[in-house]
Amino acid sequence: MDPSIRKDVSLKELQDRLAEFARARGWDQFHSPRNLLLALVGEVGELSEIFQWRGEVARGLPNWSSSDKEHLGEELSDVLLYLVRLADICDLDLAQAALMKIGKNAEKYPVGNSSPSFSTN
Amino acid sequence: MDPSIRKDVSLKELQDRLAEFARARGWDQFHSPRNLLLALVGEVGELSEIFQWRGEVARGLPNWSSSDKEHLGEELSDVLLYLVRLADICDLDLAQAALMKIGKNAEKYPVGNSSPSFSTN
Amino acid sequence: MDPSIRKDVSLKELQDRLAEFARARGWDQFHSPRNLLLALVGEVGELSEIFQWRGEVARGLPNWSSSDKEHLGEELSDVLLYLVRLADICDLDLAQAALMKIGKNAEKYPVGNSSPSFSTN
Amino acid sequence: MDPSIRKDVSLKELQDRLAEFARARGWDQFHSPRNLLLALVGEVGELSEIFQWRGEVARGLPNWSSSDKEHLGEELSDVLLYLVRLADICDLDLAQAALMKIGKNAEKYPVGNSSPSFSTN
Repeated sequence: MDPSIRKDVSLKELQDRLAEFARARGWDQFHSPRNLLLALVGEVGELSEIFQWRGEVARGLPNWSSSDKEHLGEELSDVLLYLVRLADICDLDLAQAALMKIGKNAEKYPVGNSSPSFSTN
Repeated sequence: MDPSIRKDVSLKELQDRLAEFARARGWDQFHSPRNLLLALVGEVGELSEIFQWRGEVARGLPNWSSSDKEHLGEELSDVLLYLVRLADICDLDLAQAALMKIGKNAEKYPVGNSSPSFSTN
Repeated sequence: MDPSIRKDVSLKELQDRLAEFARARGWDQFHSPRNLLLALVGEVGELSEIFQWRGEVARGLPNWSSSDKEHLGEELSDVLLYLVRLADICDLDLAQAALMKIGKNAEKYPVGNSSPSFSTN
Repeated sequence: MDPSIRKDVSLKELQDRLAEFARARGWDQFHSPRNLLLALVGEVGELSEIFQWRGEVARGLPNWSSSDKEHLGEELSDVLLYLVRLADICDLDLAQAALMKIGKNAEKYPVGNSSPSFSTN
């Protein structure tokens, strides 16, 4: 069985792999915060293009081809990888920030509240 | 010591926490793929607003106030949380997809290649 | 009758008004291409937030309040104004570029073709 | 001389040309508000990709090739065309909304104020 399949991964592992990836290729010079942010926006655009002409899409993507799902997985990943890299370049601990944000959201939206948002600003 | 500080977190842990968060609040009805995608775009907009009038920003954010850094951590987290939730709602294994994308990028950009991109499409 | 109502406006008129607006306020120093681009992304985020929890929205927005429509008009305008300003700061003739793009699209998608896109890249 | 060059164009002219363009090709069925919004986000992503690895870019794009400038003109146009089309499909008068927003901004930021923003929300 391929050990790369169905393995979980932590944010810090991703961060370390991306840092090593950039270092080995001499890309650190390009990885400024605003360069990475614009690259992230570019990937969000590609993610949106997958959904743009489909009208409403059902949970689980019941009618999507495996090729479309694979494409979606790649675009979601591209957004994630730039996000993790951006946080790292900004010296921000994304794992800690995410856990704190979930805690803050739990306080902001106590169980029983029906507002469908993680955050409003 | 606060156990929530400096803890790593995996993508599946985040996914499970967000699924439980939405379930407990009755938000599943709102979490369709395109709703979550637009919410993600909204958060990317808020992330961009933090950087919009600053001109070039140095790595590590040397002149940023701790309040600005905290705000940045929250917006990065909001993008991450919607991204993880979107992948889950689409039944996509984001951890697996991300690891596969890193592997694919390593093949596409062998060490020695200087192109500063994780992906071109 | 209010002369500001139901008046058309050209791209160059908008460009001139925005240039004068920025000049009068000393904002030219902030209006670099990437600053304006990130501001545009921020406004696209606010535009997306209006649509994010609504599920599919019908043409003409039949069930929207006049307040929601007014809010939408403001966010669409913010995107437009930053776009016009960005083109100006880049010394790009947006009117000419837009007319040429429509012409190019007409060649790319001759009548009879059913692909629902103005552009693919 | 080519009459399409250096011609100004109004928002309503663009709107009418795009409506006719879509009608002639049977694309109205695809032009729902959220489809167009996601297409707009996709184009904003392509616009961002042009700027992503360049670091800070000077006004007037002094070192850009004519091919890069032409590409930029096309991406700015794509954003504009989807924006105009989205407003039309929503039955929103974008010309009026933009003029009103400029008026509102003039009140919000009287001359003498140094804040570098057209809008904050």
